[in-house]
Amino acid sequence: MKSRRGPLLTLTDGGEGGSLQQRLFDRLRHAIATGVVAPGERLPSTRTLARDMGLSRNTAVAAIERLTAEGYLESRVGSGTFVVENLPPDYAPAEARAPAPRPQGPAPTEGGLPSPTLPFRPGIAAGDQLDVEAWRRALSRSWRSLSARALERDSAPGWRPLRVALASFLEASRGLRCHPDQILILPGRAAALDLAVGLAASPGDRVWTEDPGCPLTHALVRRLGMVPVPVPADADGLDPAKGEALAPDARLAVVTANCQMPLGTVMSLERRQALLDWAARVDARVIEDDGDGGFTFETRPPATLMSLDRAAAAARGNRVLHVGGFERILYPGLRIAYLVVPEDLLDRALDLRALFELHAPVVEQSALAEFIDEGHLASHLRRARLTYQERRETLMDAARRLWAGALTLTPAAAGLQMAARLTDGLTWKAAPGLSPDMALRHAARARSIDVTPLSSFHAPPGGALGGHRTGTQGLVLGYAAFSPPLILKAAQRLAETLDAHASGTACAY
Amino acid sequence: MKSRRGPLLTLTDGGEGGSLQQRLFDRLRHAIATGVVAPGERLPSTRTLARDMGLSRNTAVAAIERLTAEGYLESRVGSGTFVVENLPPDYAPAEARAPAPRPQGPAPTEGGLPSPTLPFRPGIAAGDQLDVEAWRRALSRSWRSLSARALERDSAPGWRPLRVALASFLEASRGLRCHPDQILILPGRAAALDLAVGLAASPGDRVWTEDPGCPLTHALVRRLGMVPVPVPADADGLDPAKGEALAPDARLAVVTANCQMPLGTVMSLERRQALLDWAARVDARVIEDDGDGGFTFETRPPATLMSLDRAAAAARGNRVLHVGGFERILYPGLRIAYLVVPEDLLDRALDLRALFELHAPVVEQSALAEFIDEGHLASHLRRARLTYQERRETLMDAARRLWAGALTLTPAAAGLQMAARLTDGLTWKAAPGLSPDMALRHAARARSIDVTPLSSFHAPPGGALGGHRTGTQGLVLGYAAFSPPLILKAAQRLAETLDAHASGTACAY
Repeated sequence: MKSRRGPLLTLTDGGEGGSLQQRLFDRLRHAIATGVVAPGERLPSTRTLARDMGLSRNTAVAAIERLTAEGYLESRVGSGTFVVENLPPDYAPAEARAPAPRPQGPAPTEGGLPSPTLPFRPGIAAGDQLDVEAWRRALSRSWRSLSARALERDSAPGWRPLRVALASFLEASRGLRCHPDQILILPGRAAALDLAVGLAASPGDRVWTEDPGCPLTHALVRRLGMVPVPVPADADGLDPAKGEALAPDARLAVVTANCQMPLGTVMSLERRQALLDWAARVDARVIEDDGDGGFTFETRPPATLMSLDRAAAAARGNRVLHVGGFERILYPGLRIAYLVVPEDLLDRALDLRALFELHAPVVEQSALAEFIDEGHLASHLRRARLTYQERRETLMDAARRLWAGALTLTPAAAGLQMAARLTDGLTWKAAPGLSPDMALRHAARARSIDVTPLSSFHAPPGGALGGHRTGTQGLVLGYAAFSPPLILKAAQRLAETLDAHASGTACAY
Repeated sequence: MKSRRGPLLTLTDGGEGGSLQQRLFDRLRHAIATGVVAPGERLPSTRTLARDMGLSRNTAVAAIERLTAEGYLESRVGSGTFVVENLPPDYAPAEARAPAPRPQGPAPTEGGLPSPTLPFRPGIAAGDQLDVEAWRRALSRSWRSLSARALERDSAPGWRPLRVALASFLEASRGLRCHPDQILILPGRAAALDLAVGLAASPGDRVWTEDPGCPLTHALVRRLGMVPVPVPADADGLDPAKGEALAPDARLAVVTANCQMPLGTVMSLERRQALLDWAARVDARVIEDDGDGGFTFETRPPATLMSLDRAAAAARGNRVLHVGGFERILYPGLRIAYLVVPEDLLDRALDLRALFELHAPVVEQSALAEFIDEGHLASHLRRARLTYQERRETLMDAARRLWAGALTLTPAAAGLQMAARLTDGLTWKAAPGLSPDMALRHAARARSIDVTPLSSFHAPPGGALGGHRTGTQGLVLGYAAFSPPLILKAAQRLAETLDAHASGTACAY
């Protein structure tokens, strides 16, 4: 790269705007897209780049980091940073292509930073729905009002004003009544789920999980030495009758009753009652994993399992642990979740939270309490729901027009994503050892589309992750984080991918 | 409380300064300390308090939360908030006592907020050593420069500029050379240790832990279905010869070589070599838990296990995983830690970080990278080390003068705390079922001193936590977070507690 260093190094000669980092990033991207630096070529070290350009090393590192995150560069342990061998086709900058006014790849965001999240990645809330200024003001006020306390760990169960605000919020938004002292604040949904599973069952216990279901749940259950028993879930959610047939003696069921992961279906009231009846009969616990945000469309969901359970608690005791979080409600980087536990598990939950150091940051907790108390969360949810509804309809419409014959959408009443099955009767290309839906994932990824194989949500026979041939073949498609034009564009590109991968008479697009 | 509501409710009549929350807090504390609200009495709900006083509910909740955290109030599930039955004797406010100008209980901090951390709680870094303004400036700059990216999750291994900064920092401060791509950023030391244990061994494997040792390590190992084998540690750290005698076939050893937890001793170079030789011979892994911050006094510690291992890696491959964190370096509420993994474990580590959603906040990572790059961390460490050295000497001096005969300090060369054994030959009071050191903890707690039983760091026979009679009896005393005057005052009160609990000729103070 030395002989061609000229065009990279003159950051001050152009009329380009933005920070030094942004300009270095733009220049390097331009050099890559126009072939000044060739695929496979090694970049100078950030130290050299920074020195040669008179920038701070941090600036150079940040630019390299962004180019790596966006797929232009890759770093190899011990040998440095290289331009990737296969540049995605439309990663060329705007000026190098004729008609398109902006890069078509990742979703552009307001700050001019292309987001590394490609459509249709599931489980991602739309960051662009958040009132960032209101959130930052709440954070600033928290720093000021907390003073030195901002540096300390939170109290044993978490920041009390947040627990008080959450108790009101859960009652108002979900009809779930609980005491603030039953709520533990935890650093993220995964941590809350992990703690809940460890509280509710013991090593060796059999545990109902959902099939298809969340790979995280499955992995957490196995990791604690419990035996997951995948129970089929369909349009009405997990089927307790099938669970009883498979493992009547299970000690725990983990269900996404209010928004099945990944199908987006809602568990019917009958099945909720049946699940709680079973749990009471065999003295099992139920974890209600509500971490998907509680976004529902078209119909109002039935009462939460925890509410139903509380109504009957006098007769049979509280059996339900309720997990919720804000990563899929406010923004993906926010690590605040909560666990509502029955009274009899509270002492142990507090001990384990302390032992495993499951603290959450005080400043964010205090800001979130204010955000809830001042009504920002409620208005955010209203706004986001309308936005998601539009995006959902865009995706369903595109599916009808572009994928009919190849994919069949599962009607999803809730959540941030939908599942679509590969149409039976078609022949799908796949390399040996690769499931058809995983092959589709790889092919789509080359076109900057991020689809998740439905088969990877089925309990793997050997505990491995990733798609496999025995599970239902399909794609899980997140839509919440992507604008309607981006959804349409990506849907078109996915249609081309499907076209190239399927053959047979059922394929009618 | 209704009939006496008057004196509590007039927040605007006095000349008192501070925020509304501070003033409500002061008034309530005054009412409790002067008996206007009696021990055991129930407080009105925060809703009622807020309405009656014309404050926001959040303000009332925050004041109640602080009073609870500081031991004036306790909340009982389902029934409300009560004044505690046994108010600590010197929790009375300044104006109610004659000579002392400030409350003597918890350490006062600059913002006027008494810290809820009592002396001698171990493992707590001194928040007052941090240049809070520099840190907040770095956070603000990160928010601005990251723009929309501040809301997203970090990249697969963590924020690259931080990993680059950490690689330089580890080499400069600990002589540990590694590539930034071997570093994973994780949300806290416990998460890093959990991931490391899961990477390095499998269910059913035997794992050397330290005896005495960190209860968290022990619990994490058990939780993953492994079998902890406690190996005695002494003034030279864990003894590999004893480990080989107990469990030569173990697959993993977890050691705090650079600052033994809780003894504060440093593992000798000979034992480090012996440990690595054993690991190479039986193909085991070693986790070097360096989460205690790396503060050493008097002598420079030997090379890290990971450095020694790398030097010999050509012959036997890399066996060491290195865990470090910033909670005990910068401030307790900061949830950023890191794990340095050998190349062969890197892919699996990245997969598990993604699966278990072990993300760390981007804004804090970016701020920390800047903090390191601009030299703030290095100067913080120099400053903190001098402060801790003074506090350590204060504690050792107090121990000689006040506790001689009852407690014997273990000479600690590193860390934020020291261990002291209860002198043999004395008779120590303890209720049935309680170890002598746990009885001392309870008695000290009533005097606002937080001592940790040494016996609780011994592997419990039944997996329970807390002190037990078979372990070495003693106290673990944190000093780093407490000013010398506070250490002296607390040491005096601990001497009185010891006096009341021990009898026999050896007790000479």
